[in-house]
Amino acid sequence: MIGYGFMGRAHSNAFHQVNHFFDTPYDLARKVICGRDPKALEAVASQWEWEEKATDWREVVGRQDVDIVDIATPNALHAPIAIAAAKAGKMVWCEKPLATSVAEAEQMTHAVGKVPNLVWFNYRRVPAVAFAKRLITEGKLGEIFHYRATYMNQSGNLGGNPNAWRYHKDEAGSGALGDLFSHVVDLALYLNGPITELSGTTHTFVPGRDVDDAAMAMVRFANGSIGSFEASRYGVGCRNRNMFEIHGSKGRVGFNLEDMNHLEYYDATEPLNLQGNRSILVTGPDQPYSENFWKPGHGIGYEHTFIAVVGDFLNSLARNEPFHPDFRDGLLVQRILDAVEKSGQSGSWVSIS
Amino acid sequence: MIGYGFMGRAHSNAFHQVNHFFDTPYDLARKVICGRDPKALEAVASQWEWEEKATDWREVVGRQDVDIVDIATPNALHAPIAIAAAKAGKMVWCEKPLATSVAEAEQMTHAVGKVPNLVWFNYRRVPAVAFAKRLITEGKLGEIFHYRATYMNQSGNLGGNPNAWRYHKDEAGSGALGDLFSHVVDLALYLNGPITELSGTTHTFVPGRDVDDAAMAMVRFANGSIGSFEASRYGVGCRNRNMFEIHGSKGRVGFNLEDMNHLEYYDATEPLNLQGNRSILVTGPDQPYSENFWKPGHGIGYEHTFIAVVGDFLNSLARNEPFHPDFRDGLLVQRILDAVEKSGQSGSWVSIS
Amino acid sequence: MIGYGFMGRAHSNAFHQVNHFFDTPYDLARKVICGRDPKALEAVASQWEWEEKATDWREVVGRQDVDIVDIATPNALHAPIAIAAAKAGKMVWCEKPLATSVAEAEQMTHAVGKVPNLVWFNYRRVPAVAFAKRLITEGKLGEIFHYRATYMNQSGNLGGNPNAWRYHKDEAGSGALGDLFSHVVDLALYLNGPITELSGTTHTFVPGRDVDDAAMAMVRFANGSIGSFEASRYGVGCRNRNMFEIHGSKGRVGFNLEDMNHLEYYDATEPLNLQGNRSILVTGPDQPYSENFWKPGHGIGYEHTFIAVVGDFLNSLARNEPFHPDFRDGLLVQRILDAVEKSGQSGSWVSIS
Amino acid sequence: MIGYGFMGRAHSNAFHQVNHFFDTPYDLARKVICGRDPKALEAVASQWEWEEKATDWREVVGRQDVDIVDIATPNALHAPIAIAAAKAGKMVWCEKPLATSVAEAEQMTHAVGKVPNLVWFNYRRVPAVAFAKRLITEGKLGEIFHYRATYMNQSGNLGGNPNAWRYHKDEAGSGALGDLFSHVVDLALYLNGPITELSGTTHTFVPGRDVDDAAMAMVRFANGSIGSFEASRYGVGCRNRNMFEIHGSKGRVGFNLEDMNHLEYYDATEPLNLQGNRSILVTGPDQPYSENFWKPGHGIGYEHTFIAVVGDFLNSLARNEPFHPDFRDGLLVQRILDAVEKSGQSGSWVSIS
Repeated sequence: MIGYGFMGRAHSNAFHQVNHFFDTPYDLARKVICGRDPKALEAVASQWEWEEKATDWREVVGRQDVDIVDIATPNALHAPIAIAAAKAGKMVWCEKPLATSVAEAEQMTHAVGKVPNLVWFNYRRVPAVAFAKRLITEGKLGEIFHYRATYMNQSGNLGGNPNAWRYHKDEAGSGALGDLFSHVVDLALYLNGPITELSGTTHTFVPGRDVDDAAMAMVRFANGSIGSFEASRYGVGCRNRNMFEIHGSKGRVGFNLEDMNHLEYYDATEPLNLQGNRSILVTGPDQPYSENFWKPGHGIGYEHTFIAVVGDFLNSLARNEPFHPDFRDGLLVQRILDAVEKSGQSGSWVSIS
Repeated sequence: MIGYGFMGRAHSNAFHQVNHFFDTPYDLARKVICGRDPKALEAVASQWEWEEKATDWREVVGRQDVDIVDIATPNALHAPIAIAAAKAGKMVWCEKPLATSVAEAEQMTHAVGKVPNLVWFNYRRVPAVAFAKRLITEGKLGEIFHYRATYMNQSGNLGGNPNAWRYHKDEAGSGALGDLFSHVVDLALYLNGPITELSGTTHTFVPGRDVDDAAMAMVRFANGSIGSFEASRYGVGCRNRNMFEIHGSKGRVGFNLEDMNHLEYYDATEPLNLQGNRSILVTGPDQPYSENFWKPGHGIGYEHTFIAVVGDFLNSLARNEPFHPDFRDGLLVQRILDAVEKSGQSGSWVSIS
Repeated sequence: MIGYGFMGRAHSNAFHQVNHFFDTPYDLARKVICGRDPKALEAVASQWEWEEKATDWREVVGRQDVDIVDIATPNALHAPIAIAAAKAGKMVWCEKPLATSVAEAEQMTHAVGKVPNLVWFNYRRVPAVAFAKRLITEGKLGEIFHYRATYMNQSGNLGGNPNAWRYHKDEAGSGALGDLFSHVVDLALYLNGPITELSGTTHTFVPGRDVDDAAMAMVRFANGSIGSFEASRYGVGCRNRNMFEIHGSKGRVGFNLEDMNHLEYYDATEPLNLQGNRSILVTGPDQPYSENFWKPGHGIGYEHTFIAVVGDFLNSLARNEPFHPDFRDGLLVQRILDAVEKSGQSGSWVSIS
Repeated sequence: MIGYGFMGRAHSNAFHQVNHFFDTPYDLARKVICGRDPKALEAVASQWEWEEKATDWREVVGRQDVDIVDIATPNALHAPIAIAAAKAGKMVWCEKPLATSVAEAEQMTHAVGKVPNLVWFNYRRVPAVAFAKRLITEGKLGEIFHYRATYMNQSGNLGGNPNAWRYHKDEAGSGALGDLFSHVVDLALYLNGPITELSGTTHTFVPGRDVDDAAMAMVRFANGSIGSFEASRYGVGCRNRNMFEIHGSKGRVGFNLEDMNHLEYYDATEPLNLQGNRSILVTGPDQPYSENFWKPGHGIGYEHTFIAVVGDFLNSLARNEPFHPDFRDGLLVQRILDAVEKSGQSGSWVSIS
């Protein structure tokens, strides 16, 4: 694993826990963790029981005893590491957003070729989100009219650390766009399919900052529905509010990551006088991942989305089946992010090829 | 109408509005309003267009041109006025609680005999409450297991006016028990049927006060369900929280007066993975009073419960049908209040005859 | 009053009730109600006690004994009636949207000149909305970053009556845009000030329909904040969901018309570990209109927004003070609606002059 | 560890995870897991990496290489195992309820003496619950008036397995009383202090079942507040609804385990017009356990309460400080459960010594 920050902890935990909750034929060895600051690295490596430490990712991706390279670095390093790892024949797992540009994402996608790979858009595996996907696939929402999503936090307003890589274009590529809006786009593509055109814009509240603080878009989907997306680091009152709602001819679903064990559902096929938005506790039975974690009624947390990513990936690998989201999915997201920026510059709608 | 306080305003408004929302054969004349303080009386009479004012209720109940005597006075006056009015052959409408003792309530009930009468337990006519009743009657909740209700406000903690009649036993009869707990009991009897036994208690937080500040009871219903009731003027954080929830073998309903246009409903006959508490906006269509007030989606307020009481009463009168709640219902409530006090004194369960 | 549909009822009720809740020097006579269908007109006139009926608005606006002409007709009639009434020196009250085009709205605004007038954007007078305005004015939200609003109902998906005037461009001017989106715009201008530019679009889900079913826009405000607006008749799961939320450097407010007695508020100046979105019951004390209606804790309904419009207008008139929203406000909304349509056609951002 | 059912999994996970989230001087070896069914035991032992398996608990508690005996068996086995383990000088950890009778609980408490021990009332360590405790301790709620708690699930109504030990008095001791009501009591004692007297009752809906399906009590606390408790396996619509609310002179808190990352808080010291129940996301910063788990805004799940129990116990042990809840706390709960049963039989209030 390259990187040892917050994502490094979340990934390390998933590697530990996957076989406690998923029945897979693989046993992940936590071989080597790589980072630039030896002291901080030592602490993470010790806490999460990594066998070895390294400070140069180039050395790590070439090791014979490494099968998977997991990238949890600042965004600008995703492409060089992923491409090097792919060339060395490793499976590549990469944090989101996949890259800092469409060009990078295309090179990365080309580089991995048929080697199994994944992008850590972990929210696809929130049980409530996966259950929404199942309801849509089963036709429970009917023809889709509207998809609306926001991802708001208040990190910018809290001041944050202006030196953090997330606030610098050369390291992060973008601000809220890559950090938060990318999750909005990935879930939209997953749940509602391809986007055909959009009008978007980005905005920076702090003078002199070279990344965006907020991003918005109006979109048209291939399925005939329309949508609106918004993300911001200045969404005061929101701690981690990754929300979506989908209105279809037969129903509605709504989700909010701050209440991640619930899914709102409205069944428009019932008698009108009984219709209402219901709050479903998605901890089983007969719901995604309810066989994996605890008994019905017992909620899970943030970390379980990472465990489920690893569990599903390993089982896909064992069955030689495709896994999603992979680099191609990451590239599709990158194209939307790019279209938002281009549309913001031109002031016009942009078609998505 | 005898009385001109907050209830006097709510009743006056209902008399004005009933024929705008209900199709009844009667037209209520606001003949005479009666109260002790001439100046305050003048203001209310003028604002609500009462034809005449009077300061002696004895004179009013004897007038030939009065058909209905509506009592909105402090509780201790309910009995003498109601009995005098009944003796004079008037229809009698009385604020809740019906009386300050079971003995009074029995005399009042006897006095009205077959003359049409009502007790203003207005919350039976919140559309969401009436809709809950309909769901129960239709069997949508199945066999009832639990009935749980609380009526909490924070008036006591806000200090209130210690001279107000509500804080004095001689005028009010009791404190939270008659004021709030009586509503809890009335709705329970309406929605869940007779109570067979209970263990109750009252409590006064303020030393020297001669009425209760809070009351609680555990109850057993004739239908085999068990229940818990609680009311308090020290429910900090509650403004007017008249809540109930009912759990049955086929579902659950929940209500909170602070959100009076909604009813919570859980349908336990659906597939388990889709079950959840739903919030139904009870503004129509095909819900109680949805033909009377505004279009679906347009909420009503506190005052409409009084309008609906009058509308339903007048239509019952025209059809010569029984109306509820009447003095007999008020007497049943009074017996429960009395049992709570007696149980509190004895420390034992009390049977309800 | 010209018109006798749903709005005719809401207005009639307000005329009846205003002096019960507001202390004004005026007493509104319900002189004459005007409409095309004599039978339906008779029913409304009788139920709401109008003195006379008329079938030709031209005759009504010329009557000497009429001081105020209130327009509650389909949108296309707003301009001719308002202009004729203004020319006859009457005060003019007009339902929203003010007109079917900017040109009409400009003519109407010019016609009324200094004659007192109003546009029935009634939601400014929901107590919770007026309270949000007060918090903003007091600086409780600090610098505003985001304004997000949606007005969704499901009338289109329910089928509706395709012959209703609301679904025809010649009578309505537009669909969800004038019907719902106009409310969104009016509240945004009221709460967050002028809009400087926008990118918008409209969408029609039903082939052959000549009005929009949904409208969206991204906007920039003069105060430096950015916003997103959306309205739809295909918002399945929404009954009357007129929502907004505003994020500022010091706090957040949120509102939903389906729960109109509450305002959400987040105070970002408190210790971070105690911050949370709170639900304030806006029924007093010391909140807008809490002296007018019922005691704290006792909610109001849809109709009270109309009563408050009339109460405030009459008191403004008595004090010779300006009233809002007037035709100039209605014209500003019309310009935004027009810009949304133009932006949708051109695919580009549009500046608002 | 003795036992390998649902609790066995939750405990095993905690042993694995404690050092990932807590900085303790101990490293727990998962030495031996003990159970009666060899096949089921093998599966659990393998999944959670226990070194050895055993089928006779008597042999395990005597092993020299075992320092801690963790009991996760049916309730009737708690006492014999705990007493034997204590006699062998082991630290003893025991699932709740501590015992099936007060007598057993007293013997167990006596047996452990000064040996470090704990009872797995894990909900004390939900961050939101611990935060409520902190607010109370800091005086944020002022003088306490009311404590109200319910623990409802619908397991009974779902049918369940009538052969499960939880439905049999000889193995479980009681039904909802020991299973659910015990949690209610433990949290009440933790948050609101000692109980001085109570009136309680239990109820069984299913004829022939020898354990209770539901339990209720009205209680008086030593601090002058009054309370109501209720627990049921027939709370249809509830999945795992462990709720409490506390009203004090300065505020209110509310909690629901189904939404375990949030705490409701009402601050009654603010201006009255801004008061409202707020929903605080208790994931940090400056909140219990926010340094241990993930970054603010990232929720935790059911399992983390067990991890925190172990983390806190080990740190208490290292610092030679008392840990709660221990067997004495478990005994206090047992006395309340006993009083509920006795009160139910006698129909009278019972004093708690």
